[in-house]
Amino acid sequence: MAKKAHKPTVVEKKLVGVADVVITAAEKRKDPTLTIPVRALSNVTFNERKGLIEMGKRKQARSFFNMAMAKKFMQTVLVADALAELQRANLTTSLREIYYRTKHTIKNSHENTLDTQDESDPIIEDLEVSLAALREELHVRAENAGSIVGPVVFVDDGDRVDCTRLGKGGYSVPSIVEPEYLQIARCTADFVLLVEKGTQWNRLSEDKFWRRYNCVLLTGNGQPPRGVRRLARRLHEEKSLPVYVLVDNDPWGYYIYSVIKQGSINLAFESQRMAIPKAKFIGLSSADPEAYGLPRNVGIKLNEKDTARAKELLNYNWFQKKPWQEEIKRMLSSGLKYELDALANKDFQYLTKRYLPRKLKEKDWLD
Amino acid sequence: MAKKAHKPTVVEKKLVGVADVVITAAEKRKDPTLTIPVRALSNVTFNERKGLIEMGKRKQARSFFNMAMAKKFMQTVLVADALAELQRANLTTSLREIYYRTKHTIKNSHENTLDTQDESDPIIEDLEVSLAALREELHVRAENAGSIVGPVVFVDDGDRVDCTRLGKGGYSVPSIVEPEYLQIARCTADFVLLVEKGTQWNRLSEDKFWRRYNCVLLTGNGQPPRGVRRLARRLHEEKSLPVYVLVDNDPWGYYIYSVIKQGSINLAFESQRMAIPKAKFIGLSSADPEAYGLPRNVGIKLNEKDTARAKELLNYNWFQKKPWQEEIKRMLSSGLKYELDALANKDFQYLTKRYLPRKLKEKDWLD
Repeated sequence: MAKKAHKPTVVEKKLVGVADVVITAAEKRKDPTLTIPVRALSNVTFNERKGLIEMGKRKQARSFFNMAMAKKFMQTVLVADALAELQRANLTTSLREIYYRTKHTIKNSHENTLDTQDESDPIIEDLEVSLAALREELHVRAENAGSIVGPVVFVDDGDRVDCTRLGKGGYSVPSIVEPEYLQIARCTADFVLLVEKGTQWNRLSEDKFWRRYNCVLLTGNGQPPRGVRRLARRLHEEKSLPVYVLVDNDPWGYYIYSVIKQGSINLAFESQRMAIPKAKFIGLSSADPEAYGLPRNVGIKLNEKDTARAKELLNYNWFQKKPWQEEIKRMLSSGLKYELDALANKDFQYLTKRYLPRKLKEKDWLD
Repeated sequence: MAKKAHKPTVVEKKLVGVADVVITAAEKRKDPTLTIPVRALSNVTFNERKGLIEMGKRKQARSFFNMAMAKKFMQTVLVADALAELQRANLTTSLREIYYRTKHTIKNSHENTLDTQDESDPIIEDLEVSLAALREELHVRAENAGSIVGPVVFVDDGDRVDCTRLGKGGYSVPSIVEPEYLQIARCTADFVLLVEKGTQWNRLSEDKFWRRYNCVLLTGNGQPPRGVRRLARRLHEEKSLPVYVLVDNDPWGYYIYSVIKQGSINLAFESQRMAIPKAKFIGLSSADPEAYGLPRNVGIKLNEKDTARAKELLNYNWFQKKPWQEEIKRMLSSGLKYELDALANKDFQYLTKRYLPRKLKEKDWLD
């Protein structure tokens, strides 16, 4: 833990630049302003060529000439300062801890710098966007929330982590998987299988599916968290691995797939480094119950929310391809959705031994 | 994956015994009955000597002479059969998949064996209790939900997993950590630190706290799941490690600690193999804000639910020791609760560098 001579990172320089805005403005006797891209639906577009949801170019100059704005500005500088501290010390932390770190009573007053985390979170988002730095590059993490097994070797803090030698449990995917923290030393897999639910990931891990089909098995236990998405993206990009996504056959499964593929509207800024436009949807498809002989009584009736959501998806730009329209309409006309778990109706190992092998053999996926 | 000659497990024999009850009854022309311990608050006691919550000895004979009961009996036999299948094939699965596996349309009818998972889950609990087999021994798992780092080596599926060499991310704790699945090959740690929240676990893992203080760092990202509790218990029992529990300073943190220590009322049956009666509460204590100089403005006002819950805890048998009464009353009289995250107010690494070292040095914990 010996201190090295400090060489500021690119991100640190950008963060320090935020404070410079104030100084420069003060020197020029002008109001300080920050230029921040507009984060609103109106400034989000689907780039068809790239296949991803992008933020537009519209920006907003935030000036700070009234008292309310002055407080916000002060908060922005405080948060930028805390984030710069993380860079200098090479630490990572959570949104909540940044809130606590920057919360103080303002000198000679009873007022707090911040009252709730609702004040610091949007500032961090603003900084992400305006400094063009991913949250992970700002060293802000969420929880570890995912597992990986298969023929890939990472280097994490100098340790070589060989994911073929971690039993059934696998490696716990960190929240931050940026190259400065996690290096992909070696990967001989042919593809990544990103499984929505932990249960099916456990099934496949237990059955050593990755060994027979030479793949990496990845899960985020539900809607995949940023670390899992970013890791899939890195394996895709750096190791040229196709990514197949396996989700429940319901509108939420389609949506999870679409976020992995082209990003989300809320976090459009991040698509550039999170989305995987070539990701394929391997199932469950609404055609699977018939193709694989799943009985109707393991289907679940679509409720009103499901139906409304499926109809919304039909209108999304990125679901306009004919096979997708058919996929969603088939679900609507059957009136049923199917969970991945329902495959167990045939046999506990049906997923490993029949379903996925046939899917892969027939290249039966949607784009 | 070559098949070996099948030697039934103890659990499998017990499961097959469930079907035998029917056959024996049929032969004797009697109604089949199963004897099941009563799962109700009235049959739960706190064993002060052992320091754990236990199920009493009251049992209930379930006979099945009417049609409604006949269906339940049929379901019990079906579920027992599915569980026996898991034993024979040496597979694990989830509650949900057992539901799907046993769901069929009854021959020559439109009726299903089960309509919802609400019918199969209680049957599995009944079987756990009446066969005296933990859910994990029945091969029923939940999701992987926890991480571990530190000087411990596991054997998982024949792989040696050295938790000092898994970077910051660590080993993803499986849902089932019974000795048949996970062996503790080596452990040179002095204690286990079980951290409620993933954020603080990440802080400690990033700072390699386990190396300096020679401990195992374990988290379940919130209320610890069964796998994490069971693993802490095994490390405690098999390797004689003290277990220190670090939680938020609020009534829910106290409760999490108490479940780790003496088990819960709902799952009293499992305390025998899950509870750690010697576990210590290392913090956050309601005495810490003063001792460690945490400002009042990082405390959060107790709401009505908090206050009511804290008062309930004051009446629990296992919180009757004087230091615990003082601990809880001090929180109530301060009117504030504190999150672990609030320690970041002092410094991002305060937990690693000041708080825990002093706690350990002063042996400042509650029993």
